Parts: sequence; C-alpha cells; structure tokens
Amino acid sequence: MSLDKRARALGQWLVLGSLVGLVCGVASAIFLFLLEEATRWRTRHEVLVYFLPLAGLVLGALYGRWGASIRGGNNLVIDTVHEGGERLPARMAPMALLGTVLTHLFGGSAGREGTAVQMGASLADAVAHRLQVSPTTRRELLAAGIAGGFGSVFGTPIAGTVFGLEVVSVGRLNYEALVPALVAALVGDFVTRSLGIHHTAYPAVSPLALSPGVMGKWLVFGAAVAAVAVVFVEGVHFLKKRMEKAVPSLALRMALGGALLVVLWKAVGTSDYLGLGLPLIERAFVDPTLPPETFALKLLFTLLTLGTGLLGGEVTPLFVVGAALGNLLARPLGLPLELAAGVGLAALFGAAANTPLALSLMAVELLGAGVLPHVLIVTVTAYLLTGQRGIYPAQRIARLKH
Amino acid sequence: MSLDKRARALGQWLVLGSLVGLVCGVASAIFLFLLEEATRWRTRHEVLVYFLPLAGLVLGALYGRWGASIRGGNNLVIDTVHEGGERLPARMAPMALLGTVLTHLFGGSAGREGTAVQMGASLADAVAHRLQVSPTTRRELLAAGIAGGFGSVFGTPIAGTVFGLEVVSVGRLNYEALVPALVAALVGDFVTRSLGIHHTAYPAVSPLALSPGVMGKWLVFGAAVAAVAVVFVEGVHFLKKRMEKAVPSLALRMALGGALLVVLWKAVGTSDYLGLGLPLIERAFVDPTLPPETFALKLLFTLLTLGTGLLGGEVTPLFVVGAALGNLLARPLGLPLELAAGVGLAALFGAAANTPLALSLMAVELLGAGVLPHVLIVTVTAYLLTGQRGIYPAQRIARLKH
Repeated sequence: MSLDKRARALGQWLVLGSLVGLVCGVASAIFLFLLEEATRWRTRHEVLVYFLPLAGLVLGALYGRWGASIRGGNNLVIDTVHEGGERLPARMAPMALLGTVLTHLFGGSAGREGTAVQMGASLADAVAHRLQVSPTTRRELLAAGIAGGFGSVFGTPIAGTVFGLEVVSVGRLNYEALVPALVAALVGDFVTRSLGIHHTAYPAVSPLALSPGVMGKWLVFGAAVAAVAVVFVEGVHFLKKRMEKAVPSLALRMALGGALLVVLWKAVGTSDYLGLGLPLIERAFVDPTLPPETFALKLLFTLLTLGTGLLGGEVTPLFVVGAALGNLLARPLGLPLELAAGVGLAALFGAAANTPLALSLMAVELLGAGVLPHVLIVTVTAYLLTGQRGIYPAQRIARLKH
Repeated sequence: MSLDKRARALGQWLVLGSLVGLVCGVASAIFLFLLEEATRWRTRHEVLVYFLPLAGLVLGALYGRWGASIRGGNNLVIDTVHEGGERLPARMAPMALLGTVLTHLFGGSAGREGTAVQMGASLADAVAHRLQVSPTTRRELLAAGIAGGFGSVFGTPIAGTVFGLEVVSVGRLNYEALVPALVAALVGDFVTRSLGIHHTAYPAVSPLALSPGVMGKWLVFGAAVAAVAVVFVEGVHFLKKRMEKAVPSLALRMALGGALLVVLWKAVGTSDYLGLGLPLIERAFVDPTLPPETFALKLLFTLLTLGTGLLGGEVTPLFVVGAALGNLLARPLGLPLELAAGVGLAALFGAAANTPLALSLMAVELLGAGVLPHVLIVTVTAYLLTGQRGIYPAQRIARLKH
C-alpha cells in the first residue's frame, strides 16, 4: 500500500468517522439530557412509579405495532455487522431512545449502552446508506457507530473504541475498523460534552501492589463476579423465553413487568433500585455499611425490567451490581473498599458482555491507572469462567475461551 | 463447556502460566541485573567503548559458530507460534542474554525486549517440551513466554500480556492465550521485582482535555512518528541486507559496526547515545533545551548497532527516540512537554512493531491514565501510516490496515 493510499485511507476515515461521531454525539447528548430530566422527575414525583405497568402497556403496544423490525436490538446490530443485509431501520434510534427514557421515567431498572449502541449503529447505517459506500466500508461504519454511541454516552472514548471492535465476536479483536471507531468515539465524546453534558465522576482509586496473596483474592473475586454474571445472563434469557410463552402479548408482558416491579419496589421499601442507580455506585465506593443484599436486589430489579421487555441497556445497572458486590467482598477478602467496588463495577459487565479489554480500559478511563492490573485479572477470570454465554447471543464465537 | 471444564482450564493455566512466569521473571532479573552492572561499568570506564569492535568480532565469531539456529530471534519465535515446528533452541536464552549484555558493556545502542522475548519464549518452549503438551497448548505457552518476558523486563504486566497476543499478527488480536499470557506476565513481573529489581520510574503525565485542535495536533504528531518509524524499520532492514552482502562474515560485520559506532561516538563528542539511553528519556520529559537532533542521533546509533548484527532489542532506544521527538514537537505544536514526550515514547515502538494496543497500555502503566486518549490517537495514526511494514517481518498480516 503506497503512502498516498494510506494517507487517503486516513483522510477517508477522518471524514466518515467524524460524521458518524457527530451524529452519535448529538444523539447521546439528547438521550442523556432526557434521561436526566426523566430521572429528576421520577425522584421528585415518586407516584410516577405506580404508572410503570401502564407505561409498559403503552410501550408494548407501540413496539408491537411498529417495533417488530427492531426488536433484535443489539443482536440485530451485531448480526448486521457480520452478515450485512438490510439497512438498520431508521426508527431504531428514536424508538430505542423513547422506550428507554419512558422506562426510566416510570422507574424501570435499565441501562444506557443498548440504547446508545442502537442509536449509533442505526445512524451510522443511515450515513453509509446515504453515501452509498461499499459493504466493507458499511461494516466498518457500523463498528464506528457502536464505538461512537458507547464512547459518547459514558464519556469513555477509548473503551468505546475497543467495545466497537470487541463486542461483535467472542475471543477475537479485529483491527479493521480501528481507525473509524477511534475517530467516531473521540468526536462523539467531544460533541456530547460540548453540548453541556456532564458525566458521572468516579473517585480515582489508589494503586495496590500485586502479590500472590492479592492475586489469589482477585481469583476468588473473579469467580464471584462470574457467578453473578451467569445468573444475570441466564436469568434474562430464561425470563424472556418463559414470559414470551406465558404472556404472548408484548403489551401485557411489559405491563406485567411493570406491575411486578411496583410490587417489588413497595416490598423493599426504598426507591434506590429504580432507574440507573448512580447514587448506589457512589455509596458502594465509600460506605462499608452498604447492605449486603444490595447487589442481589439491583440484579433482581434489572432482571425483571429487561426480562419482561422493558427498554434500556445493561451497563449502568450492572455497574451498580458489580460495585455493590465489590463492596460486599472487600471486607472478607481484605481488599481496599474503593478498589474492590471499582473492579467489580467494570468486571461484571465485561464478563457478561464478553468484552474484557473494553471494560478494563473503561475502568482506567473512569477510575485511573491504579485500577490496573487488578481489573484485568478479575475481568479475564470471570470472562473465562462464564463460558460461551453472554448477554448478546448474536456474538460470533471466534475462539473457545479455554 | 461445563463449569468443571472451565475451572480445570483455569487451574491448568494458573499452573502452567505461573511456571512460565517464574522462569521468565528469574531470567529477566538476571538480565536486568547484568545489564545495570554492564552499564555502570561502561559509564565508569568509558575506555571500554574502544573495544566495541573487538567485542563485535568475538560475539560475531561466537554467533557464527553456535548461533545459526537462533539468528532469527523474535522472528523465529513468531514463526514458531504460527507454524509449530522444531523446539526453540535452549541456547537461545543464554546467547541472547550474553550478546545483549556484552553489546551494552561496550556501548552499543540496543534495547531489551528482543532479549526478554527470546529468553521467555525459549524457556516457555522448554517447559512445553518437558511436559509434552499438545501443539495448541505449546503455542499458548509460547505466547505466555513472550508476555512473561516482556512484562517482567519492563515491569508492565498488562502491556506484556497484550504484546504477547498482539505481536504475532498484524491487525488481529486472538484471545486464545489470554489467560496464560496474563498469568505469566503477572507472575513474571512479581518474581523480577521480588528479586530486587527496580524499574525506571517515569513521571505521571497530567491529563489534557481533548478538543478538535488538540486532535489535529496529535494527527501531525502521529504522521511524524510514522515517518521516523518507517526510517527506522526500513533503515534496519536495508542496512542488514546491504551489510550482509558487503561483508559476508558475521564477525567482521559486527566488528565493523562496532568501529562505526566508535567513530560516531567520537564525532558527536558525548556518550549520551550509547547503551539504553535512559537519562535521555528523563531529560526529554522535563528539559525544553534538549538538542533537536537528539532523536535523529539516537536513531542513527541504534540503526548502526542493530543493522550490523550487534545484539539487543528495540524498545528502549525507540523510547529515547520517541520521547526526544515528542520533546522536539511539543513547542511548535503547543503541547505540554511531558505529555508529548510520553506519547512519543510509547507511540514510536507501537507503530514500528505493529502493537498499538500493547504500547498504549504500556504508556498507561508507566505514565498514568492521563496519557489516554492521546497516546492511542498517535499510536493508531502512526500504525496506519506505516503500512504493512514492521520490525518483525515474520508477523502475519491478518488484516490490511486501511
């Protein structure tokens, strides 16, 4: 490849990647703004939570009527990266956004990366379609859309870049889309921040010297993370399948999900487990008196939310579950509270999504370099122990894990 | 894969990876100890440098007599990972060690990762041979040996892990050997440190907010890094080929290399460019009056050392060249001196070796999280612009870069 060709390749990716990053960044900013408003409204007017079943009914009806082509969500995106095929529906972006914001407005426990990835990928596909690019370029722009969406919604462009490459397959990272993914994630993040969005600030964790003893502790920690990841992954898949059989109507299913969440909410007597759960993460880093059942309850709320078809991603609730699990394990294992919470936060989603590198880098971006190498040990251990399962069944198995 | 099988896979890798890490760590500690002694001796008795031609003659005679089977160096290791084939010669470890230490004792400008990788891989292959493991397991242990050698010699286990996976192919990262590589790198690093080795401490760089202006500066920076990487890679290959034709005797070639270095040393009138050059790195981070030709001179010394067959790796001299280049570019580009030096340090070897992720992680391990995302932008830009060339011709091209 001549220098001229390489320079042109760089130029092309700068333009196309920036374009994708721009639309991803704007979409993420709108999404995050609406999500914050919805969360603020719900915390001020908790009576809204009683309407979660009704919201589920309406959302289910909407999705039943217009959403058939996009129900695959992130799996549809991953399939399209691998197989090409039809253009991702333009409605994917607005419907994922609306569904997630409404789910949060009424107190569902869901995350943001699913929405961000679906918005980013469908917008990138619109760009690819509009510019009539080749199938290869389209595939790379889709990866850029995933990277741009993920990077901008969390304010972590490097994690977004690697996530865009890592999420499509298990056990292999292809560098084909490295440049467009990096450009889209950086531009997307810049655009989102420029539109006035502030991301959650986490405390920088202090480094801890690695000894065989500490490594042994992290192995135990990693096994616990793997167990919780398996419960979550299998739980969501099981619940989805059983609920689809038991309640074939999506609208009724989502309404039932909402009703179950209201019952659970009243039963536990706190609103801590509704929505993203960011305040719980903050507590997990500093509060040794965090109730030990915190991780299990957040897991249950999230399983019920996503397993019954309510909308949103997995990252932030799994951050809460992982951080709370780390908080719980810190004392018996004799690990610093903050570090254990930070490692748990990143490792659980990394294991559940089979993206150990992206989430280790995310931990570095959020918590500083002190989290290395601990987070990679735990994430890789949990990644190995969860086997070939994951929250995205569409992922191709490039390599067996053992 | 059942839980039992996965747990057994983890157990197997913990044992085998630790074993590889142990031998790598001990080898690195011996190597680093001798290297430090050699450097101390040379700086105290600079008259030793006049004997570099003689050292080249002796080393060349030794390698001509017993070294034919290991002259491939890192390329032989990479080929063996891909193709299997004969066991890496046991003599690889002691000969690479001796050759590198003597090269440094008499003032050659070379690095450490080549030696560490060859020691690690050949020791890992000895373990594989002794335990009569399967060809697949052998391949994974070789990757663990590379990771253990690299991670322990630089005190950067995460970079070592990713380097072990990334270096064998261009454009793809396979996770097959992820667990053994991580275990070997962590254990290797721990063993080396436990044996009393202290690694160079670099200053933590302060974070810098990313804006389109800063991104544009890093693109220019990346193009400069790519240009220097191309000069280095092509220069070494060209010099090696021409010298082999002009002076077929290895002993005479290495003696000639030594003589040229002595002439160059006297011509520049300073000993700064001999050996690893660690003091120059320190200066590059803080001294705005570092002479602009520093990077070019270190490049020239290193080209002459490695191009004439003298022994050692590339990392540390390229760290010097990259850091000095960053120092030079900091002022015209209006970038913080320390950050520019740090980014240049990691990016040049990352581009020359086609290992952008490993070197970005190395930057994080050495310089803190503030170096992200800048280092990845520069490393990826330079990686793209260098095309399919690299210091290790044995690397398989998994994906074209554009």
